Amino acid sequence: MASDGNKRNVPIRVARRLPIYYRFLRELMENGVERISSAELGARIGVTASQLRQDLSHFGSFGQQGYGYRVDDLYREISDILGLHQRYKMVLIGSGNLGRAIANYEGFRRRGFHVVAAFDADPDVIGTRVGVLEVQPIDQLEEYLRRIKIHIGVLTVPAHGAQKVVDTLVRCGVKGIWSFAPVRIQVPSDVAVEHIHLSDSLLSLAFRMRQAAIQAEEDEFEDA
Amino acid sequence: MASDGNKRNVPIRVARRLPIYYRFLRELMENGVERISSAELGARIGVTASQLRQDLSHFGSFGQQGYGYRVDDLYREISDILGLHQRYKMVLIGSGNLGRAIANYEGFRRRGFHVVAAFDADPDVIGTRVGVLEVQPIDQLEEYLRRIKIHIGVLTVPAHGAQKVVDTLVRCGVKGIWSFAPVRIQVPSDVAVEHIHLSDSLLSLAFRMRQAAIQAEEDEFEDA
Repeated sequence: MASDGNKRNVPIRVARRLPIYYRFLRELMENGVERISSAELGARIGVTASQLRQDLSHFGSFGQQGYGYRVDDLYREISDILGLHQRYKMVLIGSGNLGRAIANYEGFRRRGFHVVAAFDADPDVIGTRVGVLEVQPIDQLEEYLRRIKIHIGVLTVPAHGAQKVVDTLVRCGVKGIWSFAPVRIQVPSDVAVEHIHLSDSLLSLAFRMRQAAIQAEEDEFEDA
Repeated sequence: MASDGNKRNVPIRVARRLPIYYRFLRELMENGVERISSAELGARIGVTASQLRQDLSHFGSFGQQGYGYRVDDLYREISDILGLHQRYKMVLIGSGNLGRAIANYEGFRRRGFHVVAAFDADPDVIGTRVGVLEVQPIDQLEEYLRRIKIHIGVLTVPAHGAQKVVDTLVRCGVKGIWSFAPVRIQVPSDVAVEHIHLSDSLLSLAFRMRQAAIQAEEDEFEDA
């Protein structure tokens, strides 16, 4: 096995699937599974064996014909590919409930993602604590970023203030934005953005429930 | 224009895009835009004009050749298709920071999604307040669901307890699960599930930052 985490131009859909492979492989390890075929691993994730092999081929050659993958090896390789040997410093911008939930989530820290400072615009929130951190005024964000090298800005602010904050982050060299703000943001091409759209997900759920209910009614009608 | 929200077998990718259309149309309305072509609306969302028309064709015929869409009409139609004229009652299972953030998020209430009860397994959390709600012991969930008709269960529990909670929800007739638990859950075909995988999103971001950094280094090398 040989991995080459340095490949570029990896399609975004592969970038989205890597964490899923990582998650399933850990689940397998925790369940004591030592090896798995590409067909079986693919099936668990919802891709074909050949899709899985193609995804991994961006990074080197893994597994053995007729044997499949050693779960712990592949887990470690994907962990390397994801860059999880590194420590990421994050700042939280917007220290409401959602921001607090993220800052306090043990799972992120365990994987090397540390919230090292928290900011907010609301005078009632400034000075309160998020875990061990004291929430700082947003107008001190830029000065902070000039002093401390930060990898990721976590945006848990309302839509209207988001772009201004992003501009500050980008100007100060932050290369990753994790945005929960329900709005598009503009960044230069060397800055990566991931969005979590909570409302979109909830609305999709409602729509699919409605579809399922219509289906159930029709089935009942047919059975009658 | 005629909408038919009763169409079934709508592909999941269309179910995922409808909320995005909805969100962009509202943004357009707020910016005073009265009409838009399918090419322009598609471009904002990242689909082609023909993809957009095909998505909407699942629900009836919208817009006019050579005119495009009236923004407010299409917004209203999509709002209907999504089922947003309805009121959804949700229970929160897991009343930690993330659960609290969701329960207190005004945007969900505004669209008709109301958290009406909160549960937790932790004796330190039971009895505390989430907004106006008092957190109830998880072992009273089933009895509660037998009394009150609930549409959606919001799962903000750790991975290991998730399936048991889901089984209770399903047994009591809840038809929608919005899960933040980092684990697969099993449900019957008439129950809809939407996942938010926070860790997957953060790991994708880290990976893409790494890719962008490699790219930037190579560009620098070529420029030298």
